[in-house]
Amino acid sequence: MSSINRQVRLAARPSGLPQPSDWDFTEEPVPTPGEGEFVVAASFISLDPAMRGWMNAGASYIDPVEVGDVMRAGVVGRVTASEHPGFDVGDHVYSAFGVQEYALSDGKGAIKIDPSLAPLPTYLGTLGLPGMTAYFGLLDTGKLKEGDTVVVSGAAGAVGSVAGQIAKIKGARVIGIAGGEEKCRWLTEDLGFDAAIDYKGQDVRAALREAAPTGVDLYFDNVGGEILDAVLTRLARGARIVICGAVSQYNATDGVRGPANYLSLLVARASMTGMVVFDYAARYGLAAAEIAGWMSEGRLISREDIAEGGLSAFPDALLKLFAGENIGKLVLRVSD
Amino acid sequence: MSSINRQVRLAARPSGLPQPSDWDFTEEPVPTPGEGEFVVAASFISLDPAMRGWMNAGASYIDPVEVGDVMRAGVVGRVTASEHPGFDVGDHVYSAFGVQEYALSDGKGAIKIDPSLAPLPTYLGTLGLPGMTAYFGLLDTGKLKEGDTVVVSGAAGAVGSVAGQIAKIKGARVIGIAGGEEKCRWLTEDLGFDAAIDYKGQDVRAALREAAPTGVDLYFDNVGGEILDAVLTRLARGARIVICGAVSQYNATDGVRGPANYLSLLVARASMTGMVVFDYAARYGLAAAEIAGWMSEGRLISREDIAEGGLSAFPDALLKLFAGENIGKLVLRVSD
Repeated sequence: MSSINRQVRLAARPSGLPQPSDWDFTEEPVPTPGEGEFVVAASFISLDPAMRGWMNAGASYIDPVEVGDVMRAGVVGRVTASEHPGFDVGDHVYSAFGVQEYALSDGKGAIKIDPSLAPLPTYLGTLGLPGMTAYFGLLDTGKLKEGDTVVVSGAAGAVGSVAGQIAKIKGARVIGIAGGEEKCRWLTEDLGFDAAIDYKGQDVRAALREAAPTGVDLYFDNVGGEILDAVLTRLARGARIVICGAVSQYNATDGVRGPANYLSLLVARASMTGMVVFDYAARYGLAAAEIAGWMSEGRLISREDIAEGGLSAFPDALLKLFAGENIGKLVLRVSD
Repeated sequence: MSSINRQVRLAARPSGLPQPSDWDFTEEPVPTPGEGEFVVAASFISLDPAMRGWMNAGASYIDPVEVGDVMRAGVVGRVTASEHPGFDVGDHVYSAFGVQEYALSDGKGAIKIDPSLAPLPTYLGTLGLPGMTAYFGLLDTGKLKEGDTVVVSGAAGAVGSVAGQIAKIKGARVIGIAGGEEKCRWLTEDLGFDAAIDYKGQDVRAALREAAPTGVDLYFDNVGGEILDAVLTRLARGARIVICGAVSQYNATDGVRGPANYLSLLVARASMTGMVVFDYAARYGLAAAEIAGWMSEGRLISREDIAEGGLSAFPDALLKLFAGENIGKLVLRVSD
């Protein structure tokens, strides 16, 4: 075990895509736990589009990461030292331990996980916040009904791939929007989506007209921008749009593009509702149990895209999200 | 009684603000009713921002007016000849009789009105579709709750002035946004709004921060554009936005401006929902009775802005709406 804790800190607030100069690599001694504390060695660090928002100043649904702080991130790891009665050395845990090799914790917000039930990275994806976001966004905010025509953008990502599969399980017709033929093939051939639209190679509006001839009842939006505007033109009466994220806009330097077709909400008597997964924390356990059940029945596939190279690879790995290079949940391996 | 029926027809689909050349003035003989029909002489013609949308080609919540057709408009008038068992000469009626001095009707969609209960123009405003829009938009789509902080834009218009007053009656704190000091004074001094913001003279964002320090629970939007974007920055958790219209955008020639701050819906867990009043037709009677009750108790003021000059004045009168020149419901007097 190393005695050095390598860390990635926010060095500057980015304009547009994060640059290497927006990060500082620092080293500290691995902490020693005091009474009621434990130390975790990171195994996998979660890479999420939302991180880009946390790097901006100003109020949002969560406080920004301050310049100079260790970058916030969800992490699964293993307890290496403990003076906490609830956590023993060797336990596997999840929490927002940040982009660092070791973290000190008093146990608040830390969740013990069982690596015999699912691989560790799955606890950052399908059984973690992305899975919870898909589950509650679709079922709670989106009020999914059997027989709905559902469109999911960012459909090959951590949230979208789970959202689409849950919609299928619940009896919806599901159309995924993703970038590239490989992703689209994965959606229809492996995940059972009814149709997939490659926004890089197809006219999304025209493809939606064909794939959803009677209109879209529920749109789960992870991307915003042009795709949101395209779906707005195809809403069925009483459609619900769930605003989960807007990855196409997070690095915009000339302001967010608002949905110019928002008046379709009026024509379709439709709604657009924002959701933040933290509101459902009290029900994470139930949702994770249901998702795990579907996984064990082979009805829901979890895929993780594991970036190698350890902490040094963090800045580049994060950019993969915004280039749309990952399929499934992107995580960074720190140690196994 | 004249034997000539003067009419205003759509001559061309406008780009931007309607021009004189977009209208045709035509004359026809006054029709003679056949079996089951009656003829109405128009008294007042309704002028509504929505008319601008009806002039565009393409699907919306209602079919467009075709080029060459008499322009669609709500009208109150008096029956001058009848072969219909349900309508007698002298009866006052409301329907979408169009921009013409006389109309032939088979009674479908025609509603008898009582000029002894309220002046005729009120049946185009507070007791007509604008009043219904305010009532159902606020109470049904907007789910108004006692104690809500409510913001209404276009607050001195036909819909907004009624929406704000209903919100007050239902126990909300109400802030109106309108253009000009005179309108704002009317809102606070005559209609009892808690605050008014003059978007022509004030920084709307800053004024909202002051007038709604704990955030906006319900925003009734008639205008879209910059004002919608300003209100989006001040949403309370769980806020509801009712999209009733977007008068600031109807004449845009470079595309509708989408709300760039729509991601506030996510931060605030808020929703934005479109409404079309026609969906509530089965409940118009009950709503009108309740509004009439408030009027008779002096708790709700109805104001009409009557444009003179008869049919010839229609094109200019319509433009007053987009210049924001009217206070209360704008109608065109044709004959009394």
